[in-house]
Amino acid sequence: MPAHFADRLLAAIAKKGSPCCVGLDPRLDWLPNTLQSRLRLRPTAQSAASALVEFHERILKRIAPLVPAVKPQLAFFEQLGAPGIEAYEHLVRAAQALGLLVIADAKRGDIGPTAEAYARAFFGPLEIQRTRIDICAADALTVNPFFGSDGVRPFLDAARAQRAGLFLLVRTSNPSSAEFQAHPAHSIALSDLIADRVHEWGSADIGEEGYSSVGAVVGATHPKLLADLRKRMPRALFLLPGYGAQGGKAEDVVGAFDERGAGGLIVAARSVNFAYRAADGSESADWEGAIEAATARMVTDVRRALAARPS
Amino acid sequence: MPAHFADRLLAAIAKKGSPCCVGLDPRLDWLPNTLQSRLRLRPTAQSAASALVEFHERILKRIAPLVPAVKPQLAFFEQLGAPGIEAYEHLVRAAQALGLLVIADAKRGDIGPTAEAYARAFFGPLEIQRTRIDICAADALTVNPFFGSDGVRPFLDAARAQRAGLFLLVRTSNPSSAEFQAHPAHSIALSDLIADRVHEWGSADIGEEGYSSVGAVVGATHPKLLADLRKRMPRALFLLPGYGAQGGKAEDVVGAFDERGAGGLIVAARSVNFAYRAADGSESADWEGAIEAATARMVTDVRRALAARPS
Repeated sequence: MPAHFADRLLAAIAKKGSPCCVGLDPRLDWLPNTLQSRLRLRPTAQSAASALVEFHERILKRIAPLVPAVKPQLAFFEQLGAPGIEAYEHLVRAAQALGLLVIADAKRGDIGPTAEAYARAFFGPLEIQRTRIDICAADALTVNPFFGSDGVRPFLDAARAQRAGLFLLVRTSNPSSAEFQAHPAHSIALSDLIADRVHEWGSADIGEEGYSSVGAVVGATHPKLLADLRKRMPRALFLLPGYGAQGGKAEDVVGAFDERGAGGLIVAARSVNFAYRAADGSESADWEGAIEAATARMVTDVRRALAARPS
Repeated sequence: MPAHFADRLLAAIAKKGSPCCVGLDPRLDWLPNTLQSRLRLRPTAQSAASALVEFHERILKRIAPLVPAVKPQLAFFEQLGAPGIEAYEHLVRAAQALGLLVIADAKRGDIGPTAEAYARAFFGPLEIQRTRIDICAADALTVNPFFGSDGVRPFLDAARAQRAGLFLLVRTSNPSSAEFQAHPAHSIALSDLIADRVHEWGSADIGEEGYSSVGAVVGATHPKLLADLRKRMPRALFLLPGYGAQGGKAEDVVGAFDERGAGGLIVAARSVNFAYRAADGSESADWEGAIEAATARMVTDVRRALAARPS
């Protein structure tokens, strides 16, 4: 049985010395030229899936020494159908073999037996006629809490049973997130209502380091909210997307961390994943080196901001 | 190019004479005994996927003459990994070959390029190196609007381009739906805020029958809300889950229909999908006949309630 998810993540962050996560959002038309040339010879979903496998195998080796976790974005695999799902499963196994934790960014949400089936899809266990089937289990999953407790409960139960983690959407990083998550007519923002429930749901499953397996997704693009949401959810690990290409800065997100400098995981996707591509579409010859260098820059930047924050 | 989604759905409802949709939520341990016995001999994800293919091929033939649409629930396919996705794709093609519309119940939601990738996964087109790849496109998709316009826009654009439909979650059928969708502290319920935006988003794409390609999911378990939500979204097709096993009655949902008796699609899942199973787990010998009879009963019940509603 693996250790409690929060303890595993915090230990991995301490080991790598960086609370950073690389988002893997493989856009086909942004893959390195060498992979694209091969795809031109055989443009099929199967070939595209093979290109994703190679792309990720190469990236993962470079970034595994630098960061504790990766966050594959399911949409980019699903668009290739079944071969895309195989490429996702390959990525999960390859990442875990390198000691990386995998946060499946699928933002699933549903109720009852359907939510149970989604949790099983990402965490297992799958049993067919009482035979346990070996599935590819992620370490954590992003979940959309729109349905309320009925929808979240099956994910909570599955995560607890499998020692996996959840990151519930609380306040997303996009410009229009306030339309529903913090509407001006609402005296208490939806994101605050959700935050209070995340704290409640999570308090049943706290690890040895004091953090829960039930975390929160809060966009790094909302620096002023982070400290307030941290007060509402003192036990939640924060997954912080929006750093880099979406405009979030390391200085902006340190409010999400506790007094020990723990409790947050900052995600960069595009700015690292496609670091070899210039704005004009031109590309570094050494694309793997460019991704490694961008990861190292992010780690340095985040360490600096954490060291410099007001105590 | 297919016709506008709303026109296609309304024409199919008129042709079949029933605004009813069968939800396909294939729980492995509830499959008919004959299929389960075969699975016992070879309990693998691949065999389970083959069992789903056979189950759906047989069901679809029986229900296609009775209803205009089916709603496969993605979670039950995803839990089998890549073979499950192949079984889903087989189901979509088989249903469409029988003239059924397919509403993919995946409740996806994300932002920007990720939302675009999800829309491409369900509607296409997938292009690899400028080559169009034949994908399995659903006729409509359920979408979670939690992210606001940034998250919904890519789905709106893709649906419009592909003449597909969307059903946005407005108020779900589960008991805890009010926790976030209609919180007592909110002077205007989240579900009403979403309903107003659904109306706005949908008004750019109205078909010849006056309905939009942008519909709403409203639980059949909230009869009092239906008439109010219909006023907020006069052009939206309502997808109404919760009939049958979840307790919604045909009488309860007629408020969602317009004065012509159109504009709604009532979904039954468990009560039809597993009609051959008694509460004690025993099973009718003729399981396909039991599903066909349950579908016919639902159609009769809904027709009766629509005819009897106050004018």
